[in-house]
Amino acid sequence: MAVNRQILLVETPKGKLAPEHFKLQNGEMPKAKDGEVLLRNRYISLDAANRAWMQGATYREAVGAGSVMAGGAVAEVVESKAPGFEPGDLVFADTGWQDYAALPAKRLLKVPKIEPMTNLLSIYGIAGLTAYFGLLHVGQPKEGETVVVSAAAGSVGSIVGQIAKIKGCRIVGIAGGKGKCDWLKSELGFNEAVDYKSGAVFKSLKAACPQGIDVYFDNVGGEIFEACLAQMRNRGRIVCCGAISAYDGPAPTSGPRGVPGLIVVKRLRVEGFIVMDFYDQSMKAIAELMAWVNAGKLKVQEDVIDGLENAPKALIGLLAGENRGKRMVKVV
Amino acid sequence: MAVNRQILLVETPKGKLAPEHFKLQNGEMPKAKDGEVLLRNRYISLDAANRAWMQGATYREAVGAGSVMAGGAVAEVVESKAPGFEPGDLVFADTGWQDYAALPAKRLLKVPKIEPMTNLLSIYGIAGLTAYFGLLHVGQPKEGETVVVSAAAGSVGSIVGQIAKIKGCRIVGIAGGKGKCDWLKSELGFNEAVDYKSGAVFKSLKAACPQGIDVYFDNVGGEIFEACLAQMRNRGRIVCCGAISAYDGPAPTSGPRGVPGLIVVKRLRVEGFIVMDFYDQSMKAIAELMAWVNAGKLKVQEDVIDGLENAPKALIGLLAGENRGKRMVKVV
Repeated sequence: MAVNRQILLVETPKGKLAPEHFKLQNGEMPKAKDGEVLLRNRYISLDAANRAWMQGATYREAVGAGSVMAGGAVAEVVESKAPGFEPGDLVFADTGWQDYAALPAKRLLKVPKIEPMTNLLSIYGIAGLTAYFGLLHVGQPKEGETVVVSAAAGSVGSIVGQIAKIKGCRIVGIAGGKGKCDWLKSELGFNEAVDYKSGAVFKSLKAACPQGIDVYFDNVGGEIFEACLAQMRNRGRIVCCGAISAYDGPAPTSGPRGVPGLIVVKRLRVEGFIVMDFYDQSMKAIAELMAWVNAGKLKVQEDVIDGLENAPKALIGLLAGENRGKRMVKVV
Repeated sequence: MAVNRQILLVETPKGKLAPEHFKLQNGEMPKAKDGEVLLRNRYISLDAANRAWMQGATYREAVGAGSVMAGGAVAEVVESKAPGFEPGDLVFADTGWQDYAALPAKRLLKVPKIEPMTNLLSIYGIAGLTAYFGLLHVGQPKEGETVVVSAAAGSVGSIVGQIAKIKGCRIVGIAGGKGKCDWLKSELGFNEAVDYKSGAVFKSLKAACPQGIDVYFDNVGGEIFEACLAQMRNRGRIVCCGAISAYDGPAPTSGPRGVPGLIVVKRLRVEGFIVMDFYDQSMKAIAELMAWVNAGKLKVQEDVIDGLENAPKALIGLLAGENRGKRMVKVV
């Protein structure tokens, strides 16, 4: 119990993220001060955004070289010096990549004890809420519209597609590789899937969306954003959720062609969001997601990697598109 | 009366628009068929969008080589073979660059006889309505916010700035040259003006907007769009009205850096519009614009060039940023 394993980011990557940018060390056991809570990590969420945090300040401060790698997790309260938290409670918090963390109570979000606990990081966690609010509140798809989502086999994309389907949309996923594309159609009910690794995305997308795109849920930016932008219908909406293509390397020196020209001509709305902005509406969203899961309309996709020590490799793999559904690390 | 002077677009320009792309010819006098109206042009509107129409289909079909140059105008009814139109009535229509045109009644918009008639193309025409709807309906500025507008001395920009001021915003214009910048501040009440021809736009903009930008009304695209995007505040709005920088030459092969990354991180809304989409609300907008003009809160800026034969030169000059306020050609 006296050892707290930690994974440090030892160097800010310039190009692609690699194992040597991380180091596992045995740190000291943290202690909870007054107003704080000592937490034992259970599952750590892995997200493309983790890589973006290394590039500089975003909606949060940058993760600098020499610090414990940041990351959200479901953790269990071990000891509490703050009112409202008891040993055994589960919380969601940015604990970082380590076994234990002592954090002020105000930085913790108490979560219910549901089984499996992993669902707190997938469908009822950031991934599910990001898909829910991004698609429904920002994208506002109408029945019969064509919705395209990129990184469609990922944690958010796989849920976006299924919710769009529930809402009566025609849903087209963009993913890397035939395996993922077949899976999107056969397992998750996507109408079409475009394999961006198989060549001309623009043409395949055109074949998959002969009427054009009403809502594009963008997780990747770059060339795929450009191909979708060019195929938007008048008054279409582009939901800007992330830009995976730009995270794992130096910042791009230019953006997609057609900005702002096509936005004007087609009267598009291109809108970004961060899931935290919608947290005050979480309960309603979780209730609706639960109803869909229980009715068998929404399949939960999880990809659990065992062992804190495997977090770096798991994140590197996620950036390369290895995962299907929500990837996380089981700490204990 | 038997001659109809017409200006043809004789060649689709590849690079910059030049006088040799046009030709003045004496065409035949058009005749109104049943359901049509014969019009005598009075004032032809010149707009950056005229150049974009030559690049291909936009929200309208392209203007091809060999056809009379397209353009909106205020024209007088000479002869009517359609119910609802009488000789002497004024209409707004896409007559093209010529003395006379015969058009179906359904393509005409009857306009009131106000003095000066030129106001029908400036403050109470497309320029005024574009500024009004784009700023208020799309940009939705709040009192105390910082609003930036590019092509600020142009027909739309000069009105956007003044309306933002009326709404209690801090208003910063971007324009080319010290003369225009001084004029924006001394004549139109802009708080600050940035001369994009004097060097580093990013730095000057930063000095003019130390708190960042809440609403950016974009008329130009390109580098200025990029500089503004990087300085938007969280939850800012970018109104995409036009992309002058991209019209007079080959289409750009890339777009502004920071798309979509900054749109996500700052939760921006980037939205395009075409003024026609708001025509059903024109009467209310014109009434409000008139009240501001009559109260001396909104100055009308017009730049009238005499003679149909001067239209090509006047459009080329407009693309080079020659004009202050609404440029138009007086036909008769």
